[in-house]
Amino acid sequence: MEIPRNHPRYQSLKKREALLDFYERGIVTVSGLISQGRGEAFDYLIGEKSQAFAIQAEKAAVAKLIHSARPVLSVNGNAAALAGPEIVRFAKKYNLVVEANIFYWSRERIRLIVDYFKGLDLDILGLNQNARIPGLKSNRGRCEREGIFSADTVLIPLEDGDRAEALKRMGKFVISVDLNPLSRTSRFGDISIVDDVQRAFSNFSEFKEKDCENALKSFDNSSNVKKSISMIRKRLSSIKYWPEL
Amino acid sequence: MEIPRNHPRYQSLKKREALLDFYERGIVTVSGLISQGRGEAFDYLIGEKSQAFAIQAEKAAVAKLIHSARPVLSVNGNAAALAGPEIVRFAKKYNLVVEANIFYWSRERIRLIVDYFKGLDLDILGLNQNARIPGLKSNRGRCEREGIFSADTVLIPLEDGDRAEALKRMGKFVISVDLNPLSRTSRFGDISIVDDVQRAFSNFSEFKEKDCENALKSFDNSSNVKKSISMIRKRLSSIKYWPEL
Repeated sequence: MEIPRNHPRYQSLKKREALLDFYERGIVTVSGLISQGRGEAFDYLIGEKSQAFAIQAEKAAVAKLIHSARPVLSVNGNAAALAGPEIVRFAKKYNLVVEANIFYWSRERIRLIVDYFKGLDLDILGLNQNARIPGLKSNRGRCEREGIFSADTVLIPLEDGDRAEALKRMGKFVISVDLNPLSRTSRFGDISIVDDVQRAFSNFSEFKEKDCENALKSFDNSSNVKKSISMIRKRLSSIKYWPEL
Repeated sequence: MEIPRNHPRYQSLKKREALLDFYERGIVTVSGLISQGRGEAFDYLIGEKSQAFAIQAEKAAVAKLIHSARPVLSVNGNAAALAGPEIVRFAKKYNLVVEANIFYWSRERIRLIVDYFKGLDLDILGLNQNARIPGLKSNRGRCEREGIFSADTVLIPLEDGDRAEALKRMGKFVISVDLNPLSRTSRFGDISIVDDVQRAFSNFSEFKEKDCENALKSFDNSSNVKKSISMIRKRLSSIKYWPEL
């Protein structure tokens, strides 16, 4: 079914279509589809665009990544499905390391993600998991020694709360991208970006570095997250109805 | 994976498990999985239990169904997956007609839903769709003449907004069950139940009829829906974090 470009929820429906496509390719899990539904609810509540609080966090995040000694972008199946080309563009612009890292571990699914990015002309880590994030059970802690394990700053889009917490415990600077400002992942973020993952990565590549530096200097994460919650509360009172498909 | 009964999100995880099971059986669609994610977000926001505003609407709904000449309960794949036995118990208690009605139409999927209820010892309509809800395109308007088409009151759990609107235009009394108080389905409800579908159907069978009569007499849908929105706004300020799996 072709979605008309002028459909009021065009972007949202395209994202859903991408998720289904990547589900059929074995990159997104059934659980990832349910997560996308939760994301849709919060995206609608924040207005389905990058609000000022998101832009501020995103600018601060770019400055932090540029200034880190070993920054790593962690990507899972949903992030690949929603923002593959945007992730590649940003990683190439600043020469950032990307590592595939998934919640429901399978070697096959990691390989599919790595291959997907290779097809977009970017080599990413993930196939050579030779280290473990302490405090996570079995396969959930797997990562690469030269990647996430030894990173000083990790950007974790759509990450599980336990892993966000474990990375924090390792002393890393955590940048989260999660539409739910109440999620444990958002709560563990040192910079918590409350925005859609595609919009966030797309914005990252557009900012001027000078603006990013300034944003980081004055950035207050806790007050910024509160702004997102305030906006949702305001929207709840003003939305006439929810234009679902 | 066995979910421990004392897990803080046991009920929510069991629901997700049921959805996956019914997805594999061909009853729930991929789109239904994404809808479940949206539902999870709102259920968490209303506290994952039947709040006072839900109980009031549910009592009023039972009284209305009992007093209608031709009440019909509409069920789709997600409703079957989430509340099959509870729907059967309620339908039998008051001898109510149930009709399978799905958004992404397929004869096979309708048959699977009808068979599922037959396995729970309840015959439901849906296989003999010989009428059409005016104003809905192609297969989306299909229904049975002796069921939804000629009903005076329809209960629509987890329904699409367009169909809720079309039923309203036909002059029917619409009772919606939807965790999102902002959805078009909730907005078109004459009685809008903001609750989980399993909890709602389970409650329906527990109420005393006298209490239901009283609730209907004083029921004000618009003010009741507003209470659900107020509660979500309050929760947004008080939730410490979102304990996702």
